[in-house]
Amino acid sequence: MRAVVLVSGGMDSAVVLAHLRHEGFACTALSFDYGQRHRQELAAAARVAKALGAVEHLVQTIDMRCIGASALTADIPVPKDRSEDGTIPITYVPARNTVFLAYALALAEARECRTIGIGVNAVDYSGYPDCRGDFIAAFEAAANLGTKPSPHGPIRIVAPLVSMDKGQIVRRGVELGVDFGLTTSCYDPGADGRACRHCDACRLRALGFAAAGVADPVVS
Amino acid sequence: MRAVVLVSGGMDSAVVLAHLRHEGFACTALSFDYGQRHRQELAAAARVAKALGAVEHLVQTIDMRCIGASALTADIPVPKDRSEDGTIPITYVPARNTVFLAYALALAEARECRTIGIGVNAVDYSGYPDCRGDFIAAFEAAANLGTKPSPHGPIRIVAPLVSMDKGQIVRRGVELGVDFGLTTSCYDPGADGRACRHCDACRLRALGFAAAGVADPVVS
Repeated sequence: MRAVVLVSGGMDSAVVLAHLRHEGFACTALSFDYGQRHRQELAAAARVAKALGAVEHLVQTIDMRCIGASALTADIPVPKDRSEDGTIPITYVPARNTVFLAYALALAEARECRTIGIGVNAVDYSGYPDCRGDFIAAFEAAANLGTKPSPHGPIRIVAPLVSMDKGQIVRRGVELGVDFGLTTSCYDPGADGRACRHCDACRLRALGFAAAGVADPVVS
Repeated sequence: MRAVVLVSGGMDSAVVLAHLRHEGFACTALSFDYGQRHRQELAAAARVAKALGAVEHLVQTIDMRCIGASALTADIPVPKDRSEDGTIPITYVPARNTVFLAYALALAEARECRTIGIGVNAVDYSGYPDCRGDFIAAFEAAANLGTKPSPHGPIRIVAPLVSMDKGQIVRRGVELGVDFGLTTSCYDPGADGRACRHCDACRLRALGFAAAGVADPVVS
């Protein structure tokens, strides 16, 4: 069994990779260099892929900067200590997961993988519309209509974290032996690579470790 | 009203651009440099976008060669004078329209366009699964779940040619004043840029002009 797993270098996708490895999949880890300001995550993705025994790690370069309109890719400051107001934050990259899943689908089809893993979760998350289960299910339906039928069955988009909160994700990672010290979450690290601790990603990460009662090796 | 239109340089997408211009849309033409061997289509796309009054023409460079597995992007010969056997030909690029639509969606969301035009057709076509109406409808559903809701209504993926045969497409283009002499279709042109007349794309094009009773300015 082979799978393509989207691995960002963050904690969630590391848990998904560990989960699919635990289920016996030979995994191709796929990351994207999309002009993100937090490019340290690509080095983290390589560490995670290696530590968790991915068969290979591919970095697809894509240029979403021409699309602009996000604090992660354009010259817009990353918000700090943002209040939860239910709005979609400026760090949202338009249709990012659609683009990432489209590439994962192309790779899966070319390599005859029928499983794609993605670490979205819709409980403790930043409010991005493309992190919800109904989007993933709709993309899976489109993926199966838009690719060649296979004797190995339909394409499955596996999002094992989609209904977990951040504390559950940390606990599941610990169970699976994920070394969270290899991962990175910060959207806006300092020149020394240290997490800012104030962006949405840092705050969600801290919330998860606190809820799990586990020390975060990255900041402790 | 603004639209993003996928413009390949071929005849079908030229008709779609003309159709949306006729309906009053200000159109951003979007093309892809994806390592295709028939790169002459990018020059054709620029000619078509200009002639039909697109507001702008963007060329997104993407690298699908790492995915391989198609005669359009890998080192595999383009088949000539292929018999129609109902199989998906080797010129199929895995998930290509999914990737193209994902980028169009990102651009549409960033620019607050709610309409995306694509020139797929499922009547006289090469058997690619991502050219069918049910795929387009499923992608549209995913696109609306995966992007920010807008006060301007849902994203529409417009595929006005999906139920036309090639002859109808030629006639519609003539009605709309499309100069087909600006377009190119061949998958495997000679060093002089001339169409080979034997690949699937050349044969479908010839069939369309013959059915419409119109001379093709490119080969006549």
